[in-house]
Amino acid sequence: MDAKEYLMKTSRELDGPIRRYIGDEEPANLIEAARQYPYAGGKRMRPAMVLAAAGAVGGDISKAVPLAVAVEYIHNFTLVHDDFMDGDEKRRGMTTIHVAYDVPTAILAGDALFAKAFQIIAELDVPDRNMREVLRYVTQAVWDLARGQEMDINNERKIVSEEVYIETIRLKTSVLFAAAAAGGALAGGADDRTVKALHEYAMALGLGFQIFDDYLGVAGDPAKTGKSVGNDIRKGKCTVMVTHAIRNIKDPRTLEEFKGILGNADATEEQVARARSIMENAGSIAYGRQLAKEKVDEAVSKLDILAPGEHKDFMIALARYAIDREV
Amino acid sequence: MDAKEYLMKTSRELDGPIRRYIGDEEPANLIEAARQYPYAGGKRMRPAMVLAAAGAVGGDISKAVPLAVAVEYIHNFTLVHDDFMDGDEKRRGMTTIHVAYDVPTAILAGDALFAKAFQIIAELDVPDRNMREVLRYVTQAVWDLARGQEMDINNERKIVSEEVYIETIRLKTSVLFAAAAAGGALAGGADDRTVKALHEYAMALGLGFQIFDDYLGVAGDPAKTGKSVGNDIRKGKCTVMVTHAIRNIKDPRTLEEFKGILGNADATEEQVARARSIMENAGSIAYGRQLAKEKVDEAVSKLDILAPGEHKDFMIALARYAIDREV
Repeated sequence: MDAKEYLMKTSRELDGPIRRYIGDEEPANLIEAARQYPYAGGKRMRPAMVLAAAGAVGGDISKAVPLAVAVEYIHNFTLVHDDFMDGDEKRRGMTTIHVAYDVPTAILAGDALFAKAFQIIAELDVPDRNMREVLRYVTQAVWDLARGQEMDINNERKIVSEEVYIETIRLKTSVLFAAAAAGGALAGGADDRTVKALHEYAMALGLGFQIFDDYLGVAGDPAKTGKSVGNDIRKGKCTVMVTHAIRNIKDPRTLEEFKGILGNADATEEQVARARSIMENAGSIAYGRQLAKEKVDEAVSKLDILAPGEHKDFMIALARYAIDREV
Repeated sequence: MDAKEYLMKTSRELDGPIRRYIGDEEPANLIEAARQYPYAGGKRMRPAMVLAAAGAVGGDISKAVPLAVAVEYIHNFTLVHDDFMDGDEKRRGMTTIHVAYDVPTAILAGDALFAKAFQIIAELDVPDRNMREVLRYVTQAVWDLARGQEMDINNERKIVSEEVYIETIRLKTSVLFAAAAAGGALAGGADDRTVKALHEYAMALGLGFQIFDDYLGVAGDPAKTGKSVGNDIRKGKCTVMVTHAIRNIKDPRTLEEFKGILGNADATEEQVARARSIMENAGSIAYGRQLAKEKVDEAVSKLDILAPGEHKDFMIALARYAIDREV
């Protein structure tokens, strides 16, 4: 099972359903703005997780399709708001909503996608009890996403502990993956133990994915990742590698030097290379990679509860892919 | 039954519950920001509507309290976002969130209140089927609120038809009132016919309330309303009185003069008085008052389905109060 192929296939299959829930209503500018991100495609990993979980527990995948759409709308709602907050002007080559339209339209398009997602959940063709459970997971995720984004903003250019960093990425990245997996399992009619296991799988996978992303940001090939190695260092992003380095650099002057480069927006290429080499020598880059691997192993171990099958295979492949990629 | 007294009583009773659902979590600045508007009090008309509807259908009011809190959170979420979009710096004497904290915190505090409202709805102690119905009404209302706010922005300084204006205030004001009434009735265990009647009551009441507000903006005593008579005229707000005037002014030069003053931010007091007198002569101010009265009469007529009692009395009194106030 090739994870990327599975993702491409489900992304294509979702093209129709994703266009089904936002009808032509007034005002047209708001409706258009709300449609832009979901219609544009992308990897659609979260809805793929919903469908895979429903299939992996032996459920009827077609009943999970509306939930997959709802989860993607929620992801898109947070992107629209975050792009405005972060001042980003481009996403996937498109002009972001607050630039292409205006700021109020971006806020409202986000709010509207959020509302639409819960409208879809209210209509899920699953037993009422399961619908209520889905609602619990998804609302908790959205609450946590807001907390994670605020923590991320609060952490900017600060040295925070590994614990705080992990909690931030858990809230920003993992919780919606986890809600997608748990929700898909519930839509597929899974028992509580299986739902919980898939929730834990996706939570750990989200962490592994983000930690490996940070690893690629420092150790990856900029020609492939499209991200300059200096990006995270100049922004002072307090990844697990950075906090590891700060804990493990023995020489006080080296530590001082490292902290001086970190978060310095004007750091030269030489300084960035020096910071990277300090992290390398402290074993911090290897530590980051190792931690990502541990999270992914933890994720995969949760899948023992599932019977064999293509959806389980995808979930394993996706986890392996998270730490075996160059971009 | 004095509507204001009932509102003050329920607002006080809601003080505790409103503080019950947002625990001390990280990050503290987001949690504080999310608490500010709901904790600050105010009329709390929407949650009062939830409780009155639950009581009026003979239900257990205590089971509707969490929904009342959820509806107030949703109202507050829209206020936080709208205050930012409208550039308002004060609300009820407090500094608004995007000013007191910052813009991202205001966006996220709104999103968080929205998520929390649906978390509360997921836990409602009512039959699953009723919970699902509540979810339908409330999600539709939030979707409509976003459309209404966008339409309101689109309408600024434009002459729109009475139909468009009424649709805008229906979306901006009535839909959440209507969801509150329908939701309260569902939490109280009402049958579908009663739920629908209370939904229609609150929808018409919301229109009557807003149309009378516009009437007070032109015909009210500024010393009491706290709003200069020129406010709406200088902003070019296209109320039902304004569209009535445009339809009914016979003399082309008077019409020209009226349109010249409307939406002129620098209009003098004399010009504002002239515009008002033109509307008066065209019968437009009386028309606005009459239309508000008709909406309220329509609202009250929907309550025939209810058995007599203090909650029904409040709902009638609230409707009468909507068009019998000076502020």
